[in-house]
Amino acid sequence: MDPSTSYVIGIDFGTLSGRAVVMRVSDGEELGSGVLDYPHAVLEETLPDGAKLPPDWALQVPADYIEVLKRAVPDALADAGVDPAHVIGVGIDFTACTLVPVLEDGTPLNELPEYAGRRHAYVKLWKHHAAQQQADRINRLAAERDESWRARYGGLLSSEWSMAKGLQLLEEDREIYDRMWRYVEASDWLVWQLGGQFTRNTCTAGYKNNWQDAAYPDKDFLATLNADFADYFTAKIDGPIAALGSVAGHLTAEAAAWTGLPEGIPIAAGNVDAHVACPAVQAVEPGQMTAIMGTSACQIVNDAALHTVPGMCGVVDGGVIDGLYGYEAGQSGVGDIFAWFVKNAVPAATVDAAKAAGVSIHEHLTALAAAQAVGEHGLVCLDWISGNRSVLVNHELSGVILGLTLTTKPEDIYRALIEATAFGTRVIIEAFTSSGVPINELVVVGGLKRNALLMQIYADVLRLPLSVATSEQGCALGSAIHAAVAAGAYHDVKAASDAMGRKEYAAFTPDETRAVAYDALFAEYVQLHDYFGRGANDVMRRLKAIKREARA
Amino acid sequence: MDPSTSYVIGIDFGTLSGRAVVMRVSDGEELGSGVLDYPHAVLEETLPDGAKLPPDWALQVPADYIEVLKRAVPDALADAGVDPAHVIGVGIDFTACTLVPVLEDGTPLNELPEYAGRRHAYVKLWKHHAAQQQADRINRLAAERDESWRARYGGLLSSEWSMAKGLQLLEEDREIYDRMWRYVEASDWLVWQLGGQFTRNTCTAGYKNNWQDAAYPDKDFLATLNADFADYFTAKIDGPIAALGSVAGHLTAEAAAWTGLPEGIPIAAGNVDAHVACPAVQAVEPGQMTAIMGTSACQIVNDAALHTVPGMCGVVDGGVIDGLYGYEAGQSGVGDIFAWFVKNAVPAATVDAAKAAGVSIHEHLTALAAAQAVGEHGLVCLDWISGNRSVLVNHELSGVILGLTLTTKPEDIYRALIEATAFGTRVIIEAFTSSGVPINELVVVGGLKRNALLMQIYADVLRLPLSVATSEQGCALGSAIHAAVAAGAYHDVKAASDAMGRKEYAAFTPDETRAVAYDALFAEYVQLHDYFGRGANDVMRRLKAIKREARA
Repeated sequence: MDPSTSYVIGIDFGTLSGRAVVMRVSDGEELGSGVLDYPHAVLEETLPDGAKLPPDWALQVPADYIEVLKRAVPDALADAGVDPAHVIGVGIDFTACTLVPVLEDGTPLNELPEYAGRRHAYVKLWKHHAAQQQADRINRLAAERDESWRARYGGLLSSEWSMAKGLQLLEEDREIYDRMWRYVEASDWLVWQLGGQFTRNTCTAGYKNNWQDAAYPDKDFLATLNADFADYFTAKIDGPIAALGSVAGHLTAEAAAWTGLPEGIPIAAGNVDAHVACPAVQAVEPGQMTAIMGTSACQIVNDAALHTVPGMCGVVDGGVIDGLYGYEAGQSGVGDIFAWFVKNAVPAATVDAAKAAGVSIHEHLTALAAAQAVGEHGLVCLDWISGNRSVLVNHELSGVILGLTLTTKPEDIYRALIEATAFGTRVIIEAFTSSGVPINELVVVGGLKRNALLMQIYADVLRLPLSVATSEQGCALGSAIHAAVAAGAYHDVKAASDAMGRKEYAAFTPDETRAVAYDALFAEYVQLHDYFGRGANDVMRRLKAIKREARA
Repeated sequence: MDPSTSYVIGIDFGTLSGRAVVMRVSDGEELGSGVLDYPHAVLEETLPDGAKLPPDWALQVPADYIEVLKRAVPDALADAGVDPAHVIGVGIDFTACTLVPVLEDGTPLNELPEYAGRRHAYVKLWKHHAAQQQADRINRLAAERDESWRARYGGLLSSEWSMAKGLQLLEEDREIYDRMWRYVEASDWLVWQLGGQFTRNTCTAGYKNNWQDAAYPDKDFLATLNADFADYFTAKIDGPIAALGSVAGHLTAEAAAWTGLPEGIPIAAGNVDAHVACPAVQAVEPGQMTAIMGTSACQIVNDAALHTVPGMCGVVDGGVIDGLYGYEAGQSGVGDIFAWFVKNAVPAATVDAAKAAGVSIHEHLTALAAAQAVGEHGLVCLDWISGNRSVLVNHELSGVILGLTLTTKPEDIYRALIEATAFGTRVIIEAFTSSGVPINELVVVGGLKRNALLMQIYADVLRLPLSVATSEQGCALGSAIHAAVAAGAYHDVKAASDAMGRKEYAAFTPDETRAVAYDALFAEYVQLHDYFGRGANDVMRRLKAIKREARA
C-alpha cells in the first residue's frame, strides 16, 4: 500500500446532517466530500405522522442515516475523483448519547409498522431532554449509596446519557422496552450496518453507558431505581467491546452496494463526534483542550492522571487516546441558541439590513455586535436555553436574558448570548484547572470557529490562546484517522494524528483590557449561575413542571 | 348657557401625540377630535442636531406642543362641526413629571440659538431616567434625616420627579440652571401659553414637586444635597397655585388665533393625564382604582384617610378630587414594553403571518397567545424594561426574561411580558390593600383596554372586576370635565363626572381556575422581584454602571 495513493473515508454524523469525506492516508489531505441533510431532521414537536410530542423531546429516524451512506458516500467519491478501489478503510463518528432501539437483526423498532406511531420506538437524539426526572432519581440514589462510579461522571449523570434514557423508556413504554433487543448507540448501529457485526466502542461505552473498569453499575442499584431495571446494562446494552482504532467489521456486500466502496475493507470502531476530533487537530497531549463547537459544544482533554472534576460529563481510561485518561465536558446549546435567536427574535428590519448588505443574518448581527465595547449592551444572559450539561448537569434549567431596556437592540442580545456561552465554557475550564487538570490551549473545531468575533470573545473571556482546526471537516478527519489506523496504515492514533491532523496554533489570543472588563461580567454570570443553578431559587425547575402540567 | 348646545375642549398631551376633543357639556358626548403626532416624538438617542444622548435620556421639543394647539384643535372643531362660539372652556392634561426650562417670558431655553445643542435646555420627559444617581442621594439623605415628607411619597422619591431632575440639571449644566427662570411642568406651561398666566396646578405641585401641606422640603435638606440647590423649589419652581377645576387664565388673542377658539374663554388649571381620567370614568369614590394604561401605567385611587403606602408615587390632599386623599402609583413601562418587543424581537415570519391574516402584529401575537393555557409557555418576566416606578422606585432596574428554551416562540414571550405587567400591578395593589387603602374595582383607561386578552389576564391575576372606559378619549374627557367646571357649568368635578363621565362596569371578571394558576406564577414573580429589586443581587445596577462606563 502506498499512503500517498491510498484513501480513507470518514463519515461524520451530526445533529442535522451526515457528511462523508475522502482523505489521503499520507497527509490527511481532503480530496472530496458529500453531505446529506437528514430528511426528517430532528423530531421535536411531532412524529412523522403528525402526533404531538411532549416538551423537551428530540427524536430521529434511523433510515435517514442509511440515506447518508447511500448518497453522501458516493457523492464524496465522485467529488474526490479517486478510484474506490484505493479506499482502504472507513471510520465513522456520531453524536452521543444517541440511542437506537433495535431487534436482534438490527432493525430499528420504529420501522415495524405497529410501532411507527410510538414515540419511544424512535432514535432518542443526544439532546432529548425529557428524562430529567429519571436522571434526578438516579443522582439522588447514587449519592445516597455513594456509588463508586459517580466520581467518573463528575458527581452527576446527565439526563442525556443512557441510564436516564433507558429508565424513561422502561417506565413510559414497557412494551417497546421488552420488545427491544438492544438500545444501541447510533455510532455502533452504523458500524453494524456497515460491517455486519454488533460491537460497542470504548468511547460511548465508557462516557455514555457507565462501562468503567470493565463493569457496569451493580444490579442492586438499578433494581432500587425500578425492580425491572436491574438487567438494563447486561441485557439491553452489553456486547463485545471494540477499542478505538480497532477493526469492528468489514464492509458487507449490501453496504458496498449502498456506498460504492470495495466489499471487505475494514470498518473502524465507532466513535463520538467530539472525541474523534482531538487527533484531527493534534490535540492529544495533556493540557490541550479540544472544543467542538456547533449546535452544542463538547470539551475534551487528556491527562495522565485520574482526577475527579465536579460536573464534568465523564472520564474514561483511554476514552480518547490509549494510555491517557480522556475527560469530557459539554454545553448542551451553543450554535443552537444563536439559531433559535435568529429564527425567533430577529426583527424584519435586521433581516432586511442583512439582505441589503449581502450577508447572512448571523454575519450582520456579528458585524453590529463587533462594534461594541465590552459591557456596552448592559446585558448578561444564562446560556441554558437548551439546559446545562456541565457543570450543573440539569436540563430543567432554562435561559435568561437580564438587563433589557427600551433601547436594547437585537445585536445587543446576540452578543450577550455569545458571551454567555463563553462564560459557560469558562466555568467548565475553571472546574478542570481547580481539580488538577491543566488547560493551556483551546483548539476549536466545528462551524463556530468561522465567527471571528465569537472566537475573540472566547479568547478574551478565557484568557487562553485559541487554536483553530484548519480543516472544515474536523470530525470527519478524525474518523478518517481512525480508519487509517484500523486499515493498518499507522501504528496507532497518535502516529496517524501526527501525519494527518492539522490546525492553526493560537489564531486568537486574549486582549488583557477586554479580559479585565469581562472579569466583571463573568462575576455577574457566576452569581446568577449559582443562584439559579445550585438550588437557591429553583424557579426554572418549577416553571418546567408548570409547563408540562399546562400542556397535559 | 344651554349645556346641550355648549361645548368644552379637552386636550390630552400624551407621550407621542397631542389630542384635542370637543365634548358636549350636558353629557360628555364626544363630537369631534383632532390629533397630532409630535414632529420630534421623543429624543432618546440624539438631539435634533444629531448629537448623541447618553443612555436613559428622554427629551422633547416644546414647540411640538404648540403645533398641537395650532393643528389638532382646529381639526377637532372642524371634525365636530360645532360653532367655535359655543365652546365655553378649555382644559388640558399632560404627562408628568415633564419639565420645561423657561425664561421669565415663558420661552423654552432650547429655543435660544445658543442652547439648541445643549441637552439640558430641552424638555425632560417623564420617562427621562438619567437622574437615578440624584434620586439615590435624595433618598439616602431623606432616610438619614427622616424627612417628614417621605411618607407622602411611599418612602422613596422617583428619579422621574422634579427634585431629581432639578438636581441633575444643576450638577450637569450649571449655566442652563442659572439662566432658567423656572422649571415648569409642561401642563402649567401649556396653560400659560393658552391663558397668558403662569400658575401651578395642585396635582403636579403635590405629586411631582414636593408641595405638601403648603410647604416644600426645607432648604437645609436641599443644601446638604448640594449647597447651590437650597432654593430650588422657592426660586425655580414656585408660583401661584391653581386648584383643579379652577380658572387659571383666559384664552389670549394669540392662542385664540392658533386654535380658532373665542378669545377670553376660561382655561382650567392644568392636570396630569392619569389623574384627570378618574372623573371621566366615574371613579372618584374610595375603592375605585383607575389604571391609565398606555405606554406606561398610572394607578390612581382616592381614600378619605391618609395612609402611608410603601413604594407608592405619592398621596396628595385633594390631588384628584376635593375632600379626599388622592393616591398615585405607577409602572414606568407597559405598552412601551410591548412596542419594544414588536419592534426589536418579532421575526419576519410572524410579521408575514400577521400581514396574511390582515391584522397588526400586536393582534396576531395576541391571538396566538390567547390560545395558551396559563403557564404553558414556561416563562416568567420582570417588567422593568423601562425601570420600576412602584413599588421599588428604581430606574436602574431592568427587564428579565427567564425560562427560555429552544422551543420558545415570540408569542410565548409576548404573553409572558403582558403577564409580567399584570404581576407588577398586583404588587402595587397589594401594597395599597395591606396599607389600609381598599381596592374593589379597577377601571381601565387608555389604549391597552382594547386588548381583550390583556384585560382578561389582568382580571385573573388581580382577582378584580375590570371596568373599562367607553370613551376612547378618557384623558381628554377628564380635561373637558375640568373645563366645564372652570366654565361654571357644574358646581364641582364630582357633579361634572356624574353627568359627563362614562364606563362599562365589570367588563371583565376573574376566572377562578386561571386565577389559581396565576397565583403560582405570581409567587415566582415576587421571588425574583424581591431578589433583584430589594438588594440581594444588585446586578442590574452594576450592569447599568458598566454600560455607562463602556459608552463613555
